[in-house]
Amino acid sequence: MSNSHFTLEYKSTECMARLGTLETPHGRIRTPVFMPVGTRGTVKAMSPAELEELSAQIILGNTYHLMLRPGSELVAKAGGLHKFMGWDHPILTDSGGFQVFSLAGLRKMMPDGVKFSSHIDGTKFFLGPVESAKVQRDLGSDIVMAFDECTPYPCSHEEAEKSLTLTHRWERMSREQPLKDGQQMFGIVQGSTFRDLRELSAKTLSELDFNGYAIGGVSVGESQEEMFEVMSWTTPLLPENKPRYLMGVGTPRQIYEGVKHGIDMFDCVMPTRLARHGSAFVTGGGTIPVKAARYREDFSPIDPKCNCYACRNFTLAYIRHLMNVNEILGMRLLTIHNIYYFMNLMKEIREAIANGTFLEYGKTFTE
Amino acid sequence: MSNSHFTLEYKSTECMARLGTLETPHGRIRTPVFMPVGTRGTVKAMSPAELEELSAQIILGNTYHLMLRPGSELVAKAGGLHKFMGWDHPILTDSGGFQVFSLAGLRKMMPDGVKFSSHIDGTKFFLGPVESAKVQRDLGSDIVMAFDECTPYPCSHEEAEKSLTLTHRWERMSREQPLKDGQQMFGIVQGSTFRDLRELSAKTLSELDFNGYAIGGVSVGESQEEMFEVMSWTTPLLPENKPRYLMGVGTPRQIYEGVKHGIDMFDCVMPTRLARHGSAFVTGGGTIPVKAARYREDFSPIDPKCNCYACRNFTLAYIRHLMNVNEILGMRLLTIHNIYYFMNLMKEIREAIANGTFLEYGKTFTE
Repeated sequence: MSNSHFTLEYKSTECMARLGTLETPHGRIRTPVFMPVGTRGTVKAMSPAELEELSAQIILGNTYHLMLRPGSELVAKAGGLHKFMGWDHPILTDSGGFQVFSLAGLRKMMPDGVKFSSHIDGTKFFLGPVESAKVQRDLGSDIVMAFDECTPYPCSHEEAEKSLTLTHRWERMSREQPLKDGQQMFGIVQGSTFRDLRELSAKTLSELDFNGYAIGGVSVGESQEEMFEVMSWTTPLLPENKPRYLMGVGTPRQIYEGVKHGIDMFDCVMPTRLARHGSAFVTGGGTIPVKAARYREDFSPIDPKCNCYACRNFTLAYIRHLMNVNEILGMRLLTIHNIYYFMNLMKEIREAIANGTFLEYGKTFTE
Repeated sequence: MSNSHFTLEYKSTECMARLGTLETPHGRIRTPVFMPVGTRGTVKAMSPAELEELSAQIILGNTYHLMLRPGSELVAKAGGLHKFMGWDHPILTDSGGFQVFSLAGLRKMMPDGVKFSSHIDGTKFFLGPVESAKVQRDLGSDIVMAFDECTPYPCSHEEAEKSLTLTHRWERMSREQPLKDGQQMFGIVQGSTFRDLRELSAKTLSELDFNGYAIGGVSVGESQEEMFEVMSWTTPLLPENKPRYLMGVGTPRQIYEGVKHGIDMFDCVMPTRLARHGSAFVTGGGTIPVKAARYREDFSPIDPKCNCYACRNFTLAYIRHLMNVNEILGMRLLTIHNIYYFMNLMKEIREAIANGTFLEYGKTFTE
């Protein structure tokens, strides 16, 4: 049995929601947790000090982007990703698979991985279970993801089954790769929107004794209902004493539903990407378009109930102005606000589980 | 006589350098001082909290940019520029003249100002001494600049003289405009690179009893030697008990030379603009190109002698990576570093004047 880094602290009596702690070499994480995405060695527009102030517990790094630039060997020479980017708290790295499979036309499937050309300068790379683990060792992340094939959506049962067989072979190979001291590896359940395949995948991977389990192949174009169904089939079959991670999800409501289905970890570019495009999350789970003309003379904060640096110090009118003239500070303030929103959402979710008011809390979502 | 907001605290025995304090409704400024430029209601890439941490005493706002977007009436409704942008320390606003005269082809000279079309959407505006003072009242800056014509460089003596006559008429009109409680107005000496005109301008404006005097029409293409000459002609003729401001200057060495010639205030986009393009100031007064290949594996800080947030926490290799993948944090860290450099430069200059080591300090500049 792999070491038990995860401690299940409390199970809701209302649903599958749960509280836990996950130990890593860079500190303890309280779950359920949302992980801001730091694609290329920085959570876009944010400094590490600001992420700490926002109580971000763990961030995500992208194997694909970092192996291209600056290269994982450089990061290793710098002493690992934590030291390179000045972030002394936990980091989870993905396997790079998701990005590589998005490179339609620039990639070639091989038995043990994918040949691809850099989208930047055409340099040739090869990424499979062996290479992905090597890169993630170089990066020194706390949580390493197994290399899988992200099944495209939509696809036939036959295609999904074939893809799942490959994914399982690659995940077995991944599990055999050496890891750095303290590094954990999570497996990824695939199977598209087919119940039998999701169940098969959950059972097969459970036997590989990963340190945690992700549900992959979601938020790839399927309906929200399908996403919730996939969770409802999968989580009951995953080991209870291991953390569960819903990859690339999602909206506040999707995160809430994920927790309800027994998910412990989430990541999504939504808060940071929407911020840079001028959308701010507000009470209820929706967003407002900050650049809209109706906020021109609105001298109230983005959200009067919010206590973030942006809402405590600046008005909608000001942030709208900054966004309309493309000032970096506009993107910074909206990023701070949106990450604060997600951090606060998770804090409220954890409190609601502890207080037995989780289902009640769900009624606060208006979107 | 206008109120004496400026107190000359100490005169160097070595040269014309001096120490002073300038009182404003938003606090006291120790001179010589460098003012970071906040063109459109934000010092690019920086938050007000970061500027405070860097001990920025006063920042500059641009009348032209702010009257176009978001419009000075909106800023007035927000309670003034300080409140709008969340900066509770002094602000100096320029008159807008410099930018308007740069709009070749889009502007038309009139007796009492300039007609121009917005470079953004073609909207028609008129800016002269009356309008500029009105906008600056709306903005509520601590220091208002008189409206002048920035004489183009190079130009003939005849052209410079004609331009100076107009400037003097406009500055007289400016001086007659109402100001808000506590607002001060500075006049601007012009006269291109002609000694007789600079002397005439200094004398003429001295009689108008402004609260301070700027030297304009420098850093417009003339040689560094010409810039120093203009100062050497002008400052001896300006009232000793009023602050002197060298507009749009400059490099660390130019600032040092300015102080030596009796200048108290400086502003320049150089630290912030160069930061966004990847240049970092280093000990000696020069810059290094952070994106250069030679820093790829340089795990030392930008400047080992620097104590800014960027140098205390990040390596050249990391900041180079951020700049090469266009991450906002790269621009932020270089902006913090460069502003820190200029703030520290002014602090060292003030200390050197106080300690009688100002000329000695000048030897530290290698560029």
